[in-house]
Amino acid sequence: MESFIAPRRILMGAGPTEIPNRVLSATARPTLGHLDPAFVALMEEVKALLRYAFRTTNDVTFPLSAPGSAGMEVCFVNLVEPGDRVIVCRNGVFGERMRENVVRLGGEAIVVDHEWGEPVSVERLAEALRANPGVKAVAFVHAETSTGAQSDAAEICALAEAHGALTIVDTVTSLGGTPVCVDEWGADAVYSGTQKCLACPPGLAPVTFSPRAIAAVKARKAPAQSWFLDLNLVLGYWDGGDGGRSYHHTAPVNAIYGLHEALVMLKEEGLEQSWTRHRDNHEILKAGLGTMGLDFLVDADHRLPQMNVIKVPDGIDEAAVRRDLMAEHAIDIGAGLGPLAGRVWRIGLMGQAVRLENIMRLLSGLETALIRQGRDLKRGNAICAARHVAASFARAGAPTGERAIAACAA
Amino acid sequence: MESFIAPRRILMGAGPTEIPNRVLSATARPTLGHLDPAFVALMEEVKALLRYAFRTTNDVTFPLSAPGSAGMEVCFVNLVEPGDRVIVCRNGVFGERMRENVVRLGGEAIVVDHEWGEPVSVERLAEALRANPGVKAVAFVHAETSTGAQSDAAEICALAEAHGALTIVDTVTSLGGTPVCVDEWGADAVYSGTQKCLACPPGLAPVTFSPRAIAAVKARKAPAQSWFLDLNLVLGYWDGGDGGRSYHHTAPVNAIYGLHEALVMLKEEGLEQSWTRHRDNHEILKAGLGTMGLDFLVDADHRLPQMNVIKVPDGIDEAAVRRDLMAEHAIDIGAGLGPLAGRVWRIGLMGQAVRLENIMRLLSGLETALIRQGRDLKRGNAICAARHVAASFARAGAPTGERAIAACAA
Repeated sequence: MESFIAPRRILMGAGPTEIPNRVLSATARPTLGHLDPAFVALMEEVKALLRYAFRTTNDVTFPLSAPGSAGMEVCFVNLVEPGDRVIVCRNGVFGERMRENVVRLGGEAIVVDHEWGEPVSVERLAEALRANPGVKAVAFVHAETSTGAQSDAAEICALAEAHGALTIVDTVTSLGGTPVCVDEWGADAVYSGTQKCLACPPGLAPVTFSPRAIAAVKARKAPAQSWFLDLNLVLGYWDGGDGGRSYHHTAPVNAIYGLHEALVMLKEEGLEQSWTRHRDNHEILKAGLGTMGLDFLVDADHRLPQMNVIKVPDGIDEAAVRRDLMAEHAIDIGAGLGPLAGRVWRIGLMGQAVRLENIMRLLSGLETALIRQGRDLKRGNAICAARHVAASFARAGAPTGERAIAACAA
Repeated sequence: MESFIAPRRILMGAGPTEIPNRVLSATARPTLGHLDPAFVALMEEVKALLRYAFRTTNDVTFPLSAPGSAGMEVCFVNLVEPGDRVIVCRNGVFGERMRENVVRLGGEAIVVDHEWGEPVSVERLAEALRANPGVKAVAFVHAETSTGAQSDAAEICALAEAHGALTIVDTVTSLGGTPVCVDEWGADAVYSGTQKCLACPPGLAPVTFSPRAIAAVKARKAPAQSWFLDLNLVLGYWDGGDGGRSYHHTAPVNAIYGLHEALVMLKEEGLEQSWTRHRDNHEILKAGLGTMGLDFLVDADHRLPQMNVIKVPDGIDEAAVRRDLMAEHAIDIGAGLGPLAGRVWRIGLMGQAVRLENIMRLLSGLETALIRQGRDLKRGNAICAARHVAASFARAGAPTGERAIAACAA
């Protein structure tokens, strides 16, 4: 067996996304000890940068040493005790996973169910809260990666708080891509991942906990069922306080280098500008898709710009289209999950490395694949429409548009 | 905030250790999708290489997407159900952590306690097994990182099996450094880490499960309390079987590149040769320490060559010695944990990157630090003694010795 040379792919699926070279090379810097003063100083910078990304002043804000799925679990395992009732808003894969978390911990999950592709209904959540007074928490997914739907986190959190319930919020796909405003929302336990709009390799889960959430953790009757994810222990390392830091587990030092670099890049660009860039790229893609008669699963008001879930037209072999894109353009887009398997494509436009030439290449490849399957499309129309939108951003002086046009011209 | 430039350190503590450039640069290769066929092929290579490292034919052998501490937890959370009785052999930090795992899962931990620095007593374990018929498992640490003691895994596993108990074995510090022979031992659930003798960045936990252990997982009455660590779900991704692989979580793709490269290097060198190299380096270090009157915590028969736990002589300020080593040589050695805090130093000689010049530099720095604190030592004696041992390996034709001498002369 020999060294692995990764083939080149253009990652436009549900994540991981393209990783900038700055981030990749940061991960390859010499490993430091996990209690080295230089590394501890870096940890403090990562915490500050994550507070910026999450728009929060929460003390307890750090990257958990495991992927986003463990980020979900660290919220539930610390906040849910046996017998606790939790309302779970389920509108895709990740809501169902939340329900599983509650049940495995001995809690009672009260599910507010939705069609896949719908945002969470604030009205139906309000009904559920009225019908179940005294629930411990409301859990929901801000940005459902499986459907591309965005829910109104501010309203949901306000409603939960008015009923005295904590909130557990999945921002895996939204952080850095669309507004995540933890303090303005009043969210309590929020987790994310690194491999989406932060454009980092997968493997870490940024998390943040409000003082109210931490108080609930401290008030537990019994320790969390997980030793590895027990916040009281993890914080002995990430927080330390007056007693100094103590060893809990060996942090993934090099992965944290990469996250630091990605967050520095986010700060350099500016969070609001990053949101704008994701939205602009979405508009460019959408214009091209429109020429092919392709439509979104989610209605316009609740679409995630970074996660475009497109309905497969009748009579089209969706897997063949993905195979063509991979074979001819090395483009990796996502398939549907669960009930959406075979019915949608998931096109991710996430993070720093989404470039206009990749969007154009995708549109061109998609057009070719559809023509091959008998669609009556004029070759080049999609790119032309997309280019017009990109040009309009340039005329409006948006930095994204400028970059987009420059890349298109190159 | 700016990009982080890691200062150069020589890592000779309890891990992470020095990481070879080949491994660091592998982690920086372009990220692939976690279901990309090229990545799936790499996963299969990693599984095969881990079987080589663990000396096992176990199908279920893979790297868990989280640090070694989660490797411990994946064994306990899948094998221990509420009410199960587990004998935990405790002779250091990690045995105590095992006990915590059992208790948090609602199991009953029967502790066979030892002085720190002792190996697990097979006689006392036999007593405990006789006194507690029908225990579900025996858990022990093969290589206690906190004390440097190695236990007789073959005898312990045979004894447990004779009593119908499964075994859960911590090989975090031993894998790749001293013989870990999962099949010869008949061990059932074995976990390790990447940042010790495999010389990889921290963040993954290689694990292997015997068919007997997998049968026990399948026979559980209720699902594991952890969704993230539920083997039945994790294996849907890592194993797949006839139904193909399914998404569970997004694997830490780049970290797995690094592990693959480290395992390819281990295969190139040869597992037995790696064990020899670790032992030779230990002998070289020991000769130098002997000239300073420094002694090991663990008796000669049970010392780990890769984890040298040295008693701090009376009257020596141990923290000042570590500060001197860091300030003057950028050498990072480990402090004592728990009851050994302030009483020992922990000198790690782990992995591919341990070079003779670093051992020599450490010995020289230690000598200077002790002279500074009033010890009557002749400067240069330690290096001289160590060099003699290295030279003897060279004369005996050991490849390590040759490398050692070449590095020493350089």
